Amino acid sequence: MIAELISVGTEILLGNIVNTNAAFLSEKCAQLGLSLYYQTVVGDNPERLRETLTLALGRSDLVILGGGLGPTQDDLTKEIAAQVFGRVLKEDPHTRERIEGFFKLRGTKPEEITENNWKQALAPEGAVIVDNENGTAPGLILEGNGKTAILLPGPPNEMIPMFNQKIFPYLREKQPEIIVSEMIKICGIGESRVESMISDLIAAQNNPTVATYAKTGEVHLRVTAKAGNEAEARKLIKPMVRELKVRFGNKIYSTEEHVTLEEAVVSLLKEGGMSLTTVESCTGGLFTGRLVNVQGASEVLKQGFITYSNKSKRKLVGVKKLTLKEFGAVSEKTAREMAKGARMVTGSDVSVSITGLAGPDGGTEEKPVGLVYIAVAVKDNMKVQEYRFSGNRAKIRESAVVAALTQLRMSILENIQL
Amino acid sequence: MIAELISVGTEILLGNIVNTNAAFLSEKCAQLGLSLYYQTVVGDNPERLRETLTLALGRSDLVILGGGLGPTQDDLTKEIAAQVFGRVLKEDPHTRERIEGFFKLRGTKPEEITENNWKQALAPEGAVIVDNENGTAPGLILEGNGKTAILLPGPPNEMIPMFNQKIFPYLREKQPEIIVSEMIKICGIGESRVESMISDLIAAQNNPTVATYAKTGEVHLRVTAKAGNEAEARKLIKPMVRELKVRFGNKIYSTEEHVTLEEAVVSLLKEGGMSLTTVESCTGGLFTGRLVNVQGASEVLKQGFITYSNKSKRKLVGVKKLTLKEFGAVSEKTAREMAKGARMVTGSDVSVSITGLAGPDGGTEEKPVGLVYIAVAVKDNMKVQEYRFSGNRAKIRESAVVAALTQLRMSILENIQL
Repeated sequence: MIAELISVGTEILLGNIVNTNAAFLSEKCAQLGLSLYYQTVVGDNPERLRETLTLALGRSDLVILGGGLGPTQDDLTKEIAAQVFGRVLKEDPHTRERIEGFFKLRGTKPEEITENNWKQALAPEGAVIVDNENGTAPGLILEGNGKTAILLPGPPNEMIPMFNQKIFPYLREKQPEIIVSEMIKICGIGESRVESMISDLIAAQNNPTVATYAKTGEVHLRVTAKAGNEAEARKLIKPMVRELKVRFGNKIYSTEEHVTLEEAVVSLLKEGGMSLTTVESCTGGLFTGRLVNVQGASEVLKQGFITYSNKSKRKLVGVKKLTLKEFGAVSEKTAREMAKGARMVTGSDVSVSITGLAGPDGGTEEKPVGLVYIAVAVKDNMKVQEYRFSGNRAKIRESAVVAALTQLRMSILENIQL
Repeated sequence: MIAELISVGTEILLGNIVNTNAAFLSEKCAQLGLSLYYQTVVGDNPERLRETLTLALGRSDLVILGGGLGPTQDDLTKEIAAQVFGRVLKEDPHTRERIEGFFKLRGTKPEEITENNWKQALAPEGAVIVDNENGTAPGLILEGNGKTAILLPGPPNEMIPMFNQKIFPYLREKQPEIIVSEMIKICGIGESRVESMISDLIAAQNNPTVATYAKTGEVHLRVTAKAGNEAEARKLIKPMVRELKVRFGNKIYSTEEHVTLEEAVVSLLKEGGMSLTTVESCTGGLFTGRLVNVQGASEVLKQGFITYSNKSKRKLVGVKKLTLKEFGAVSEKTAREMAKGARMVTGSDVSVSITGLAGPDGGTEEKPVGLVYIAVAVKDNMKVQEYRFSGNRAKIRESAVVAALTQLRMSILENIQL
């Protein structure tokens, strides 16, 4: 099945946003075994959108459109798709009700809902309506003349869950060949290192294939096989997965598609029955914020300190004045005292501290921007590591968060093994 | 002048990389006043690339192609562009010399340079050759029949400097018209509400135009005008910007392109000479993490508490046991005591507390998932607001962070006015 993507939005053409949706959807299409030949971005312009959709439906079996489903006058995707498929728009009572419920939940009174919102309850006749759990505009599936168009909302936080929960299973059913893939998620090794460790497997690959996806501080390997049925595909995948497990050992934090690094870390803490306290300086809460993403994190995470100033490092977690004076806030010794103090103040089993220079100013030759110290104390076992990250302020802090998760994970593993 | 982009690369169609080049080039085109109507991504496939380029040259004056200029057999952009323009490829001695120099600088001996590299010294007859300061493949400009194609290397570290230093000035000279845009950034009003407040302006728009961009908890308005020179364009923009300022008043947190909401809030705190302490429960550090994104946040932000457990709410910021028992952790009263306690413990001028239910579990009819209380204390003025957000866990927490920034901003403004 040949597929293509159309992203609708003048903001993409103006360069205001990066089209990450296209990368997400392309990866999913690859996973589904769809041959994706084109991605197109077109603005909120009816003629150009109509031409683009018509061209796409002429050369592909499936067209996935993203964006332009909202309440504003600019949002035209549904209207144009209905025209191209020769359908009229009718109000869908279920969607109207869902939108009312959406606003009610937010405390908006019915009379306060502006008229343009009801536009989102209109659907082309005969379209499959896909509920939006995270917003007002529903997704839509249109089929006709052997062609399929799938219309998805633009905001990633609406589109991604909708795709994963509803569109992915729908497309999987349409595929004659079964594509099965397994994920191996690695932390603590860089992408080029990972690639050189599997260059022989990549060179020899056929069915299954291995693809690498780099994220900050992580590398994901996807092993994909095609076969007539699932059992056969799984059989093809198995030896490759086994080999990768041997090569990457305990650097693999999960082999589950949807398990994040923070989930893996929270699970380990739960298994070990360990409570956690965090102390953050340069990351300013982002590390804890990432852990709190995990449902049930409250079982292990009790509190955190954001000790941004020197004074708060002393007052809240008892870093010594002399340490700050002699070694500075960004030092191995300060990181150590932050983590130690956090355990002392709270009685937690485990503590993590992060202190570093996120820049852009404040770097010196001895302590350049990007220098970060992370300390992890698991009971009385303390380990401090020095890192030198590159990139801008946001990138350095993101790298520090992932490094802290990775280091925490390794420390817990070591402690469990003891 | 109508322009479009073509990105060539199967890795983009597989979702292995995000097409950040397209965002970069689009923003530059907007800055140059080029009307960019399409972005297309096509794989390393000669037929599809030829079709895509032919279509693009048919409907646009300028086509910028990125990628596919390297030494491998997959790299076909130059070959296809030469065919479409009816030119033969000839070796360019200067480029051959430059490639030799490039390898020499890296310690590669001439006999070690693999044969395929010389492919990069071939150029379509009559093309303008644009030296690549950071790689081997040069950029190429082809002109013919009133159309222009610009071929750029794919790697961002080669493409971006080449574009900025050589292509941007080249295109600026070709442009008769100047485009100027101004940004108005609004918080505390929803997108559809903003839209309905300016529907008359949008309906009547011509030059300048107004476009809305929604972000979580924010709406950005871009006013854009075209004219023969910058002064004239600014003159066209001015009345529209003035009108928008009247309509949105103090909901506008910035009229600067690159100022974020957190930057606006940190600036206000700095102006007022106010120190800040944060106390986060459901957001678990994300609010403070966002403030710390601002360079120089340390001037106002001294520390934060992440009081995830009930015990830590009592111990770290002195929330009363009775309050937690009678009203619960997610209540107006707990939020109030968190913010009050934070100021008492630290002596800060301002404190912000956030407590809520991010879900997905733990909701009741009385206290549904998405219920969030935010308290802001500016000196002795305390204000607590109740919110009901929707979406998944991450979305609720992101909404809470933006609401806290917005509420904090309004409280400081009110305090300054007193």
